[in-house]
Formats: sequence, C-alpha cells, structure tokens
Amino acid sequence: MPKRKISLLGATGSIGQQTLDLIRKSPNTYSLEACAAAGNNLDAFIQIVEEFQPKLVSTASASKADDLYKSLSLSVKNKIQIIHGEASLKEVAAFPLSDTVILGLVGALGLESALTALNCGKRTIFANKEPLVMAGNLIREALNNNKEAVLIPADSEHVAVHQCLQGQNFDKVNNLYLTASGGPFWNEKNLDFNSIKPAQALNHPTWKMGHKITIDSATLMNKGLEVIEAYSLFEIPYDKIQVLIHPQSLVHSMVEFIDGHVLAQLGPNDMRLVLQYALDYPSRQNNLTDKFLNWKEINKLEFFEPDLEKFKCLKLAYWAGKHAQTYTACLVAADEIAVELFLQEKIKFSQIPDLIEEVLNMHSAQEPKTLEIIQKTDQWAREQAMNLYKTKYI
Amino acid sequence: MPKRKISLLGATGSIGQQTLDLIRKSPNTYSLEACAAAGNNLDAFIQIVEEFQPKLVSTASASKADDLYKSLSLSVKNKIQIIHGEASLKEVAAFPLSDTVILGLVGALGLESALTALNCGKRTIFANKEPLVMAGNLIREALNNNKEAVLIPADSEHVAVHQCLQGQNFDKVNNLYLTASGGPFWNEKNLDFNSIKPAQALNHPTWKMGHKITIDSATLMNKGLEVIEAYSLFEIPYDKIQVLIHPQSLVHSMVEFIDGHVLAQLGPNDMRLVLQYALDYPSRQNNLTDKFLNWKEINKLEFFEPDLEKFKCLKLAYWAGKHAQTYTACLVAADEIAVELFLQEKIKFSQIPDLIEEVLNMHSAQEPKTLEIIQKTDQWAREQAMNLYKTKYI
Repeated sequence: MPKRKISLLGATGSIGQQTLDLIRKSPNTYSLEACAAAGNNLDAFIQIVEEFQPKLVSTASASKADDLYKSLSLSVKNKIQIIHGEASLKEVAAFPLSDTVILGLVGALGLESALTALNCGKRTIFANKEPLVMAGNLIREALNNNKEAVLIPADSEHVAVHQCLQGQNFDKVNNLYLTASGGPFWNEKNLDFNSIKPAQALNHPTWKMGHKITIDSATLMNKGLEVIEAYSLFEIPYDKIQVLIHPQSLVHSMVEFIDGHVLAQLGPNDMRLVLQYALDYPSRQNNLTDKFLNWKEINKLEFFEPDLEKFKCLKLAYWAGKHAQTYTACLVAADEIAVELFLQEKIKFSQIPDLIEEVLNMHSAQEPKTLEIIQKTDQWAREQAMNLYKTKYI
Repeated sequence: MPKRKISLLGATGSIGQQTLDLIRKSPNTYSLEACAAAGNNLDAFIQIVEEFQPKLVSTASASKADDLYKSLSLSVKNKIQIIHGEASLKEVAAFPLSDTVILGLVGALGLESALTALNCGKRTIFANKEPLVMAGNLIREALNNNKEAVLIPADSEHVAVHQCLQGQNFDKVNNLYLTASGGPFWNEKNLDFNSIKPAQALNHPTWKMGHKITIDSATLMNKGLEVIEAYSLFEIPYDKIQVLIHPQSLVHSMVEFIDGHVLAQLGPNDMRLVLQYALDYPSRQNNLTDKFLNWKEINKLEFFEPDLEKFKCLKLAYWAGKHAQTYTACLVAADEIAVELFLQEKIKFSQIPDLIEEVLNMHSAQEPKTLEIIQKTDQWAREQAMNLYKTKYI
C-alpha cells in the first residue's frame, strides 16, 4: 500500500484526534502533511502541530493564527506555513503534497473542501456526512469528472455497506439495513421528550463522538442523514434503505440481496477502525492489534424497528431525501441551528423536529445545480430557523 | 445470466429434490439435462424422469435400470438413455449437453465425478463435501488445469464465506468463523452420550437434511469436515478456521479481517437459497420471493464455543486436516462406516469418534498424489472400521 499523505480537516475534533492516533501508530503508512482546526482548543492544536509538524496549517482567524504562531517552538514555526479563514480550508484540501483528505469538520462546513479535494483527484474520506447529504449530486459529479479521485465514507454504517458491496452488483440489492444504536432514548417508553436536558442527550450508549452528532443520534436525525448519505454514495433508492435499531452497535450495517442472502459487517465500536478502513482501502492492515470482536463475550444481537412517529427527525430526513432538490441542504442547515439551540437550552428536545419541519415547509426548493444554490439554501434555512425560534419559541 | 444446463448427481436425495424444485420454479434459467440416482427410491426417480425428461439417466445397477425403463411412459422412454453402475456417474458428470454439475451424492461417492466435471470444464457445485475433504489437492489441481471450470461450494457455511470473500484479498483474513447449529445435543449438560438413539440424533433443530449428514451434525463431525472443506476451497490455514455454535442458524458464517472488520452472511434456513447462489454466481435472481429474513421477528443471535472434549469428532477432523496426507480420506471413510453402524444401532453414539480415532491411529498416511491412492485409503479405512467393529464393539 502506498503511504497515505494526509490533509486533515478538523484536527482537534473527535475524528481528528482518532486519525492522529492512527498516524502515530503507523508512521510508515500515514503522514500528516496539512491540517486545519478552528483553534477553539488552542492547546490541543499547538500540541498536534508540534508533534506532527505538518507543512501547512489552517485556522479560523488571523488572531488564532497569531496565537498559534506565537506558541510554537522556534524549530517548528520555521518549518510550517500558517494560513487562516474559511477559504484556507480549501487550500488544505488542495495541498499538493497530500494525496488523501480527511473531512472531519462539523456540519455543512466541509462541502467546499470536499469538492476541492475531489477536483484535485485526491482520496477523499467523508468522516462528516453533511456534504454528501447537502450536495450528493455535485459530489458524484466531481468524482466522475476526476478519474484519480476516490470517494470513501468514514461513517461506520457506510463503511459497513461499502464492505458488503465489494464485488457485488448494486442492481441486485434488495435492501440496505442501516443500523442505529438508537441513542439513549429509543426504548424509553414513558419519557417525556419535552423534559430531556442536553446532558441526558449527550450520554450516548456506545459511541464517543462530538456534541452535534451525539444529539443527532439521540433524535435519530443522524440516522436520517445517513439514509441520505447512503443514497448519495451508493445510489440505492430510498425505498430500499431501511433503518434498524440495534442497541449492541456491533452489526454496523447490512445488505440484503434479491436472492435472500444478507451480508453484514460487524466489528468493535472503535472509530479508528472505520478511519483505518477508509485510509487503507482496498488494502487492510493490522495496526490496532487489540481490536477484535471477542465472540466468547457476545451472545446477543438484537434488532428493532424505529418508531417514526416518536423520532420525527428520521421521518423528516426520509421526506427530504425523497423530495431531493435543495430540501436535503435545508434539512442539514435547519438541524444544525435546532441542535445548537437545544444545546444552549433555548428550545426543548421535542422542538428540534418541529423547528426543522417548519423550515422545510417554508422552503421553495430548486434543483441543486451549483454550489451557490446550495450555499444560499444553507444560509436561508439557518436564518429561517433562527427567525422561527425568535418569533415562536422564545 | 446464461441458462444453466444441469447434470444432477443424487436426484432423489435432499439436495436433488431441492435442486429440482429450483428448476421447476425457473424453467427459463435452469434445465435438467442429465441425472443420476441409486434407484432405492424408485417411485421418486420415475416421477423425476417423467417430469423433467433428462436426456441421460444413470442408476446403480442393471436391474434398477430395467425397473426404471419398464415403469416409464412410452413417450418418455423413447427420448432418454439409461445407463448404470458407479462408472456411469462419470458419464453424467461429463455429459456434453450440460455445463453445470451438481454433486448431491452421499459421502465419498462423488469424488471421481467431481474430478470428471472439473476436467470437462464444467461449473461444479459441491453440495456434498466429502470429495473436497478427501482430495482437496486433486480438486484444486483439476480446477487450475481447466480454465473453463468453476468450483462453487453449496454448503451454507462455505457459500457464506464465498460471499464474504468477494472482492477481498485472502491474505488479509484473520479468521474464518464457521457457524454450527450445534445439532440436538451441544447444550445438553447431563445427557449420557452412550444412551443416544438414532431417532434422537436424527432430530436436527434447524436444517432438514439426509440421514448421514444429520448424524454428522449431531457429532459435530459435519462441522469438522467443513473445516477441512474450507481449507480446500479457500486455502486459509487451519489455525485461522474457527467453529462457533450458533443455535439460531441465521449467521451462516463469518470472515474476520486483520484490521478487525468482520463480514457475516445471514439468511433464512433454506438449502434452496444456497443452491441458487451456487447456480447463479456471480449473478443473483429472485425466484424464491417469500424467502427473506424478517428482522421484526429476530432479536437474538447467540454464539458459543464448541466443547472439543465432548465433541471429539470435531477435534479429530482438525487433527486429520492439519496432518493432511491421506488422513482426511481416512477420516471420511471411517466416519461413514461409524455413522452407518450407529444408524443400525450396532455401536453407541459415543463410540462414533472412538472408532474413527482408532482407524486414524492405525493409518500409515502418504501423500494423496493420485485418485488411486485416495481410493485405496478409502477402501482400507472402511475395512479397518468394520474389522474394529467386529473385533472390539460387538
């Protein structure tokens, strides 16, 4: 396997830290060539730059860049270039010395960088799903126009489907089953969704992730976005993409073929295994030796159907996906605002889907032919969500 | 998918009947060109020949051939050729109008036909595993020497592994997990193995199969033979082939890769699905529409390690596989005699492994370079097993 020379977007986040752990474990297989982080966690960022000494470093603002520069040791600051601002993310994605771009940003932020990476012919690893949800058509177009480009998911469910579909004819798929841990509330029969506090929703039963995605897991919006992501990646029709609650989070997803045979991918709950697959595909290596399923300790795997009336976000995501156009971009943006408002305890848990649904209902959808149209939708939906909050929810 | 023109060996057995059911359901996809049956169930054989009118029909003896001929309607008997004797099996396997051979014979009988089918460049479907166990090296050699030939398993476990390995590099396999229902006795803590009667051992919890394989399932010898079969098919070392008891029989087998990712194949317990996969590969079709797993009804999948001290047949099979040479042929032959003696209530259930072990201990193994060497081993082991029975077990 050729060495993967990595541009890492979102270096201090959960995906970033786990990617860096992989690089640390396999310095002969992976290297960090460039990275970006907003700079909100400056100490962690300084430590990363000192340890890995990437050639290009991007941060959110001139002042963050200045803070970072001042904190670095002399030997390191002389070797690296620091750039800043949202546009600098694209420079990291396009960095000529990298052949692999890992998108570990939160929410919609990664879209332009994703398109840049694909247009530069890079292996582009989607650890944040929103770009695929907002602009699946543009991403597929960029992929098709660049023969060198490789698109690989780094969501455990889609890496599972990716593996199940190896060597298979996509036309013979009868159903994709995306599994969901269900988050902390799927089986709470008598819980009042109005009373749920952020701390409860952030208490995910199996995966350790960032705040936004953890709340999305509790509402099942994360699974809804993954349904759209699966459509974008594999072009399997929505009526063949099913969600199953699987509390053990060991079966990461399944593919049922038209002849009744089902392939499932299982593995330990470790995001590093998912990132490693995306980095190494089509090869595999063993540099996380302790990470094997222990069958002696497993004796139960359960599957349940989600309640779409209780978890309205999942229903909304199917609706947006099926109606396509700019509805999916609208969904992503409205959800980001709604989750943020919930985390700030400004709206109730039960109001997250209400707010999103209202924004979707108000949206005049169009074909998402250009990045500009998607960006405008994104901006519009955020503004509408905030307006609705201010006028109806305060 | 081109139409599969089938030679079916073992037409009246369990595999045969299920193959015929598939042909009946998809007459545009499959046709029966030739078939063989011993003729012990003459009524069933007559019915098959009348219904499918294969061009070539083989049966065990001249008298069976005569009985069959006399019982057929005039219009049918004028269209078909009836041949007899063990050597006639090879003619069915080599029949020029067939492109696909299904080996549905019991035990060692199919070996010569298997080699003939591969040497004639046919798609050769191994629904009986013994040839692969006895002479994996000769079968691989025949496959490698005939570019047109295709070898496909039709054991649910190996069809599972076959699917999990599609598009994968075999060098990256960490473990194959062959699942076993465990048969009726794996979890009987206080059962005296000396007291088990054939009727109890024939009461398999999940699969409906022939008598020999059902007893082999109860002793776990069937799983042991499958371990050797897996080695023959995929050339994965024995220390990477594991057996797991899985009472629900829904996960048909699994492959763990070196990076910790596991692929599993699941499906309803229907041997026709397995045969259909073997017939259609690399295509798939849906002609058994009612056969899908219903996830709403499944909520438990359990896995346990087998007790090798209690199920000595499995231990013996690993031993024979690892020691290779003619030990695997010896194992198959001794097991056939032991199971037959048990079915006739001449030896106890607990004596099946004892008898086999004694034959293995007495065997002077050699390289299985030729069919003759394997056939001689087969004959020797049968005689030794009978001698041992007569001298020590009566």
